[in-house]
Amino acid sequence: MTSSETSQHKASFSAPRGFLTTFKSDLKETFFPDDPLTQFHDDKPLRRFKKAIQYFIPIFKWLPNYKLSMFRFDLLAGITIASLAIPQGISYAKLAGIPPIIGLYSSFAPPLVYAVFGDSKHLAVGTVAACSLFLAETIGKLVSRHDDPTLYLHLFFTATFVTGITQAALGFLRLGILVDFLSHSTITGFMGGTAILICLQQLKGFFGMKHFTNKTDVVSVIRSVIAYKHEFRWESFVTGIIFLIFLQFTRYLGQKKPKLFMISAVAPILVVAVGCVFAYLIHGQDHGIEIVGPLKKGINPPSIQYMNFDSKYISAVIKGGTITALIALAEGIAIGRSFAILNNDHVDGNKEMMAFGLMNLVGSFTSCYLTTGPFSKTAVNYNAGSKTPMSNVVMAICMGLTLQYLAPLFSHTPIVALSAIIFSAMLGLIKYKHAIHLFKVDKFDFFICMVAFFGVAFISMDIGLMLSVGLSVLRALLYVARPGTCKLGRIPNSSLYRDTKQYPAATVAPGILVLQLGSPIYFANSNYIRERVLRWIQEEQSKYSKPEEDDIMIEHVLLDLTGVSTIDVTGIETLIELRRTLEGKGIEVAIINPNLNVTEKLIASHFIDKIGEENIYLSIGDAVDACELSFQKLKVSDAVSEHSDHAV
Amino acid sequence: MTSSETSQHKASFSAPRGFLTTFKSDLKETFFPDDPLTQFHDDKPLRRFKKAIQYFIPIFKWLPNYKLSMFRFDLLAGITIASLAIPQGISYAKLAGIPPIIGLYSSFAPPLVYAVFGDSKHLAVGTVAACSLFLAETIGKLVSRHDDPTLYLHLFFTATFVTGITQAALGFLRLGILVDFLSHSTITGFMGGTAILICLQQLKGFFGMKHFTNKTDVVSVIRSVIAYKHEFRWESFVTGIIFLIFLQFTRYLGQKKPKLFMISAVAPILVVAVGCVFAYLIHGQDHGIEIVGPLKKGINPPSIQYMNFDSKYISAVIKGGTITALIALAEGIAIGRSFAILNNDHVDGNKEMMAFGLMNLVGSFTSCYLTTGPFSKTAVNYNAGSKTPMSNVVMAICMGLTLQYLAPLFSHTPIVALSAIIFSAMLGLIKYKHAIHLFKVDKFDFFICMVAFFGVAFISMDIGLMLSVGLSVLRALLYVARPGTCKLGRIPNSSLYRDTKQYPAATVAPGILVLQLGSPIYFANSNYIRERVLRWIQEEQSKYSKPEEDDIMIEHVLLDLTGVSTIDVTGIETLIELRRTLEGKGIEVAIINPNLNVTEKLIASHFIDKIGEENIYLSIGDAVDACELSFQKLKVSDAVSEHSDHAV
Repeated sequence: MTSSETSQHKASFSAPRGFLTTFKSDLKETFFPDDPLTQFHDDKPLRRFKKAIQYFIPIFKWLPNYKLSMFRFDLLAGITIASLAIPQGISYAKLAGIPPIIGLYSSFAPPLVYAVFGDSKHLAVGTVAACSLFLAETIGKLVSRHDDPTLYLHLFFTATFVTGITQAALGFLRLGILVDFLSHSTITGFMGGTAILICLQQLKGFFGMKHFTNKTDVVSVIRSVIAYKHEFRWESFVTGIIFLIFLQFTRYLGQKKPKLFMISAVAPILVVAVGCVFAYLIHGQDHGIEIVGPLKKGINPPSIQYMNFDSKYISAVIKGGTITALIALAEGIAIGRSFAILNNDHVDGNKEMMAFGLMNLVGSFTSCYLTTGPFSKTAVNYNAGSKTPMSNVVMAICMGLTLQYLAPLFSHTPIVALSAIIFSAMLGLIKYKHAIHLFKVDKFDFFICMVAFFGVAFISMDIGLMLSVGLSVLRALLYVARPGTCKLGRIPNSSLYRDTKQYPAATVAPGILVLQLGSPIYFANSNYIRERVLRWIQEEQSKYSKPEEDDIMIEHVLLDLTGVSTIDVTGIETLIELRRTLEGKGIEVAIINPNLNVTEKLIASHFIDKIGEENIYLSIGDAVDACELSFQKLKVSDAVSEHSDHAV
Repeated sequence: MTSSETSQHKASFSAPRGFLTTFKSDLKETFFPDDPLTQFHDDKPLRRFKKAIQYFIPIFKWLPNYKLSMFRFDLLAGITIASLAIPQGISYAKLAGIPPIIGLYSSFAPPLVYAVFGDSKHLAVGTVAACSLFLAETIGKLVSRHDDPTLYLHLFFTATFVTGITQAALGFLRLGILVDFLSHSTITGFMGGTAILICLQQLKGFFGMKHFTNKTDVVSVIRSVIAYKHEFRWESFVTGIIFLIFLQFTRYLGQKKPKLFMISAVAPILVVAVGCVFAYLIHGQDHGIEIVGPLKKGINPPSIQYMNFDSKYISAVIKGGTITALIALAEGIAIGRSFAILNNDHVDGNKEMMAFGLMNLVGSFTSCYLTTGPFSKTAVNYNAGSKTPMSNVVMAICMGLTLQYLAPLFSHTPIVALSAIIFSAMLGLIKYKHAIHLFKVDKFDFFICMVAFFGVAFISMDIGLMLSVGLSVLRALLYVARPGTCKLGRIPNSSLYRDTKQYPAATVAPGILVLQLGSPIYFANSNYIRERVLRWIQEEQSKYSKPEEDDIMIEHVLLDLTGVSTIDVTGIETLIELRRTLEGKGIEVAIINPNLNVTEKLIASHFIDKIGEENIYLSIGDAVDACELSFQKLKVSDAVSEHSDHAV
C-alpha cells in the first residue's frame, strides 16, 4: 500500500449524533444487550401479541408443539429427578435446620411455576446446599432453631419471599448485570469453601452425635467434634461409611460408563430405601442410628400468613434473602446456560430471573424455602433425556403423590444415610482441577478464588463471598485505572503497526514515537496516561542520547486511539494538557483513528479545533508518512538556509 | 498492499513471560507509573546518594542554586500572599468555629515544612474553606463549639494529625491512585456546592446576627435566617455590601488588566485594615458591627499534648481527617500541577502527598489545623512572580512577625469584613461555565457534577461527595461491564478496516463478519460480549435474508482483539463457549491481533491449541483474504461435485 493510496482517506468528522440517539443506544447496550424485542418487528398486531405472550410465558411456546414421543423422555427424567428430590429435599432441610417436610414441599410447588415461566429445557428445580447453609447461618444468628423453631421457620419463609421479590425485580429491571459481577473464580471458591463446611456439618450425622455447634466455620466445627467426642457411636459411623462408599462407587461408574449413569442417578433413593428398611429392622435408634422422625401426610399447606416483617429480624431476613437470591441466580443461570450451550440453545438470563423470582414468591406462600436450578439435579435431568420443562411437571406430580401417600414411610430414614448423600454430593463441588487451571492461566483469578474458599471456610460465608467479590471489583477498577499502553512499530515489508515488545522486528523512523493508548481514557486513569506518555517519551529519548547516535530529538508523538472506546471530560482535558506540555517541548502531537464516540466528544470539547483536523489521521501509516514528509521538508529548508548562510 | 505481501507475517506465539516478570511489570504500572527511580540508574554511589536526597528533600535541589535575583520576586510574592493569609486565616478559622488565631498559626509552621519537602514552585500553603466547613460539620455533630470549645479545638488538632498521617501514608505507599478517583466533575460540583453553603454561612456576618443554626445545608440556613430575622442589623449589612462591591470590583479589574492584579491581591488586607480603623473609630460594636475579639501575641504554642484519641470521638475524627485529607490532596495536587503545566514543569503527585502529610503532621503539633495549597493563594503567588518555594518562607516570616507584634491590632477586624472576603472568594469557585461545558461534552459527567453540587447543598457535604464519587465509580464499572463492540468494514481502495457506522462506505464480502471487541474482556462483561456477538450475527444474517438477496449465510466471524489489552479466565471461557456455539451453527471463528498479555493467557488456557494457530491472524486483511480463499475453494469444489453429479 503506497501512501498516496491511503492518504485520500480522511478521518470522519460527521456531525455529532444527538443526545437522545446516544442515550438510547447506551441504555440499550446496558440493559437490553440481547435485544429481546427484535423478534416483534415487522409483524401484525395479533401475531405480535401472540409472540409477546410466548416470549413472557414460554409454556405457550413449547406446549402447543408438545408431542407424545417427547413425553416418554420427560416421564423417565421426571421420575428420576423426583427420586433425587426426596433425599436431597430432606437432607438440605435438615442442613437448614427446618423440618424435613419443608424440603419435600419445595420440590412440589416451585417446579410447577418454573415449568410455566422457565426458559431452559434441562433445568431441574430444587433446593441447594449452599443457600440452605447460608440462610441457616444468617437467621440462626438471631433466632435459635432449638428454642423457637416456629419463628425460625417463619423467617425462612419471609427470606424466601424476599429472594423471590429480589429475583423478579432484577429480572424485570434487567439488572442481570449484577449477577455478572460474581465471576467464575468467585463461584468456584465459594462453592468449594461451602462444600467443605457442609461436609464438616455431616460429621454430626456420621458420628451419631446429639450435640453440635451452631457455628459453621472449620475451627468451631472441629472444636465441637473434639468436645463431644464421647458421644461418638461406631454403629452410625460404619453404616455411614458403607453408604458413602456405595454412593461414590456408583458415581464413579456413572462417570466412566455413561450407559450406567442411571445407577448413579437412583443411588441416593436406594440408599434412603435400604437405610429405612435397615433402621426399621434393627431398631436403629437403640443402636445410635438416629432417624428423621415423623413426617406429616398431605401436600403443601399455605404459609402466606406466616410472613414476619418484624423490625427486629427484618435486616437479617433481607440480607439472607438478597444474597441467596444472587447466589441462586448465579448458580441457576450459569447451569441453565451451560447445558443450553451443549445443545446449541440459548437461555435468556433476564427471563430466567423473572421465572426464578416467581417460583420463589409462590414457594414462600406455599411452605417452601429457597429453590433454584441445582447442578446435580439438572445434570441428572439432562442425562436422563429431558426434552422440555415437562420433566419438572412430572417430578412435581411424583412429589405430590409422595407427600399425599408415602411421606410417613420416609420418617424411618437414618440421618446417617442423609449425611452420606450430602457428603457425596459435596465432594463433587470441590473443583480443585479448576483451581489449578486458574493458577496456570491467571494468578489474580486464582487469588480471588482462594480468598472466597478460605474466607468461607475460616471466617463466614458472607464475608468470604464479599471479600472475593470486592477483590474482583477492585481488579476491574484497577484495570480502568491502569489501562495498557504500548509503543508501536512497523513490521518490516508491511503496513502493519504492532507492539514492539511483542514483535521486536517492528520499528519506526527515529524522531517519531507511536503509542497505542488503552481504553477507556477516564478520570481514574487520566493522570496515569499523562505520566506514562511522558515516560515513554523520556525512555525513547534516552535511547537516542547514547554516544553512538546523533542527537536526534523526538519531534512527533502519534497517539493511536483505535482501542479507545470511550473518553470522558477529564480524559479530554488530559489530552489537551498533554498536547500543551509536549508543544512546549517542541513535540507535535497527532491523533489516530478516534472512534465515533470519541470523535463526538473531541468535537464538542473543541479539541479538534485546537489540534487542527489535519492532525487527526485515519491510519498510523498516513500519520507516519506525514511526519516523514515534514522531516524531508525540514532537511531541504535546512540545506537551503545553510546554502544562504554560505552565500552571506 | 497485496495479500501475499502481508500474509508472510504471522502472529507471534513466543513463550509466555514468567509470572515474576508480569507481576513486576503490573506492580510497576500500578504504583510507579512515573518511574521515579529512573534517574538513579548508571551512577556512582555518592552521586546516587546525593540524587536520592535531592529527590526526597527538594530543598537540597533548589537552594544550592538559589540566586539573589530570584529573591526579589520571591520577596514580593511572599509579602503579597502573607497579606492574603491574614484575612483568610482569620475567616476560615471563624468558619471552622475555632479561635481565629489558629488560622494565623496555620500560615506560619506549615509553609516552612512545605518549603523543605514540597515539589511545586508556585504552590502557596494555607487553609481552605471547604475543608474548614467539612471538619466543622463532622466534629460539630459530636461536640458543640459553644458548650466545650476546648474539646472541639483539640479534636480539630487530632483530625489534622489524622490528615497528616493519611496523606503521608498515601504518598509513601504510592496510592495517589485513590485521589485519581475524585474526577474533575466531582470536584467542580463539590466545590460549587460548598461555595454556596459557605456564602450562606456568611449571611450571619452580613446581617450582624447573634444566633444562627449549626447545620450547613441550604434549607436549614434559610430557615434560620428567617427565624432570627429580628436580629437583622442594617449598619452591618450596608458595610458588608460596600466591602463586597469593592472586592468584586478589584477582582474584575485584576482579571481585565493583568497589570492591575496587585490591587486585587492586596484588596482583602485593605478591607481588613479599613474595617479595623472604621470599627475602632465609630465603636462598631455599639452599632451592630461585631468584631473578631482578642487575639493573643506570640507564635504557635505546641499542641502535641492535646491529641485526643477518646473512643467516643475517634470515628468522627478519623472520618473527618481522612476525607479532608483526600479533598485537600485533590485540590492541592491539581492546582500544583496546573500551574506547573503553564511553565512546562512537572509535579510528582506522590512526593507532594508526602510533603502535604508532613506539613499537616507538624501543623497538628503546633496549634495549626488542616492546610493545603488553596487555589486563590497559589494563583496570587504565581502572578506575583514567585520563583521557588522561598515565597512560602517569606510568607511564614511575615506571619511570624505579625503574630509576635501585630496580632492584637487585628482584633478590631469587623466580622462583616471577613464575611465579605469569604463571600467574594467563594463566588469565584462556582464554575458555572465549566458545568455548561460538561453538559455540552458529556451528559453523564454533568450529572455527576450536579449530584455533587445538589447533594452538598441540600443533604450534607460528605453524602454529596460520596454519592458523586459512587456514581463515578459505578460509571467506571459500567464501562467495564459494557465495552463497546463494532462491526468493521474495509474502506474502499485501502487496506483499512474501520467501524461501518462511522465510515458507511466500509464493507466486507458477504458471509464474513468482522467485529472489533472492546477492552477488557472480563467476568463482568463476558455474558454481555457473548450475547452481543450473537446479536451482531443475527442482525447481519437478517440483512441477508431479504428477498432480493440469495440465501447467503455468515460463515466466518473474525474477532479483532487489537484494542483488548487484557482478558481474565472467565473471559477466555466465554470465547471458548462462543466458538463452540458458533461452530455448532457452522460458523468459523478467527482471532485477530491478540496482544502480548492476551496471547499469553490464550496459550496458557490451551485456547490456541483448540482453535489452531492458523486461525490467529496478525491483521484483518490476512484473515479476510484467507476467508475469501476458502470461499473460492468451496465454489471450485461445488463446481467439481456438480460436474461429477452430471457425469453420474
